Amino acid sequence: MNETPRLVQVRQRILKQNDLVAHALRERFQRRGIFVVSLVSSPGSGKTAFLESMLASLRRRYRVAALVGDLATDNDAQRLARSGAPARQIITGTVCHLEAPMVEAAFEEWREEPLDFLFIENVGNLVCPATFDLGEALRLVLFSVTEGEDKPLKYPTIFNTADVAIITKLDLAAAVEFDAVAAHRNIQAVRPGMEIFEVSTKTGEGMETWFSFVTARRDRTPGFLTV
Amino acid sequence: MNETPRLVQVRQRILKQNDLVAHALRERFQRRGIFVVSLVSSPGSGKTAFLESMLASLRRRYRVAALVGDLATDNDAQRLARSGAPARQIITGTVCHLEAPMVEAAFEEWREEPLDFLFIENVGNLVCPATFDLGEALRLVLFSVTEGEDKPLKYPTIFNTADVAIITKLDLAAAVEFDAVAAHRNIQAVRPGMEIFEVSTKTGEGMETWFSFVTARRDRTPGFLTV
Repeated sequence: MNETPRLVQVRQRILKQNDLVAHALRERFQRRGIFVVSLVSSPGSGKTAFLESMLASLRRRYRVAALVGDLATDNDAQRLARSGAPARQIITGTVCHLEAPMVEAAFEEWREEPLDFLFIENVGNLVCPATFDLGEALRLVLFSVTEGEDKPLKYPTIFNTADVAIITKLDLAAAVEFDAVAAHRNIQAVRPGMEIFEVSTKTGEGMETWFSFVTARRDRTPGFLTV
Repeated sequence: MNETPRLVQVRQRILKQNDLVAHALRERFQRRGIFVVSLVSSPGSGKTAFLESMLASLRRRYRVAALVGDLATDNDAQRLARSGAPARQIITGTVCHLEAPMVEAAFEEWREEPLDFLFIENVGNLVCPATFDLGEALRLVLFSVTEGEDKPLKYPTIFNTADVAIITKLDLAAAVEFDAVAAHRNIQAVRPGMEIFEVSTKTGEGMETWFSFVTARRDRTPGFLTV
């Protein structure tokens, strides 16, 4: 209904421009040995808590940093900075997703800094971020047990464009009668073969398994040195 | 970054066109005595469960119907139909919000049907639906205790463009250590004077208070007859 030909044209131009920048970013990250992991999810799925926990754990062995997108506040960067890792906020205003040029601009400050991992937390949204490549090596989609097992079916594109699914807030699974079998089935229906991790940042359950996966994934990627 | 002058122009045209249709819809609903309530929230905040509970309760005294927006599935309309009330799905494809012309088209089928309440469940999204008027008399923004008390500060526009806030999943408040004082303070910070209801569709807590409010609001609006 709002897809007038001209709007489609303008959108395609934006996407094309985004892809060019993302492509250059990906090469640059790879050349410098920075493994970039982006996180997408609905608001309140626990992206920031998950990231906080990852930064705190991984920084014992790796040089880590984080970029965080938000419409209006820099609360998340402040929260993440508590982990001791460098964190920068990208304020998007009314734009409901990050774009590669925003990442490029925010990354400028660290242009000389040696890094092993860069995490990019997207704006909380299960729709808009799907089609914007940010130059990441791995894209995670998070969804919490409290959101309902049907979310992969209702937001297929965001699951299709992600590499790994993280089911969060496992500590609440019993309270909300979370149906893990249905959740896994729905993920596999829209993205067959997708790897799935179940975690709770509150109890720590599943976090070590995830850390092992993501660090092995980095260390095994050609061009990245084992730390 | 993606706000090139032409895109802004196209967006403004879409919004202007939307407003014209919404304006006409609002007059039409008012003339026919249909009190229209729309619901916006993040995915998984419990919009459909809340609506199911409202339809089941209100249909004892009122003629009610529901329109539900979703990107890809008609699961929600099927769920809502279990309440016995007529429900229609609007599949938006890749569009992350409902627009007034979509509501107008979906409503066509009920053009002759007498109704007291029409509920419109928007696509789960805390950003995109904010600026699209749907001709509703009352807009509710829902957020669940599991999403975090900071959401009003992070998504101010959606709170600013809504009339009433509904805090859902109250039964999980203790498990997630929900800070009700902070949540209310954050809502009031972005939308001073906003009315807030706290509910659990699981235990039924707070639902009667909400039903009394919404029916009184309808019955007291000039032009709407008390049922």
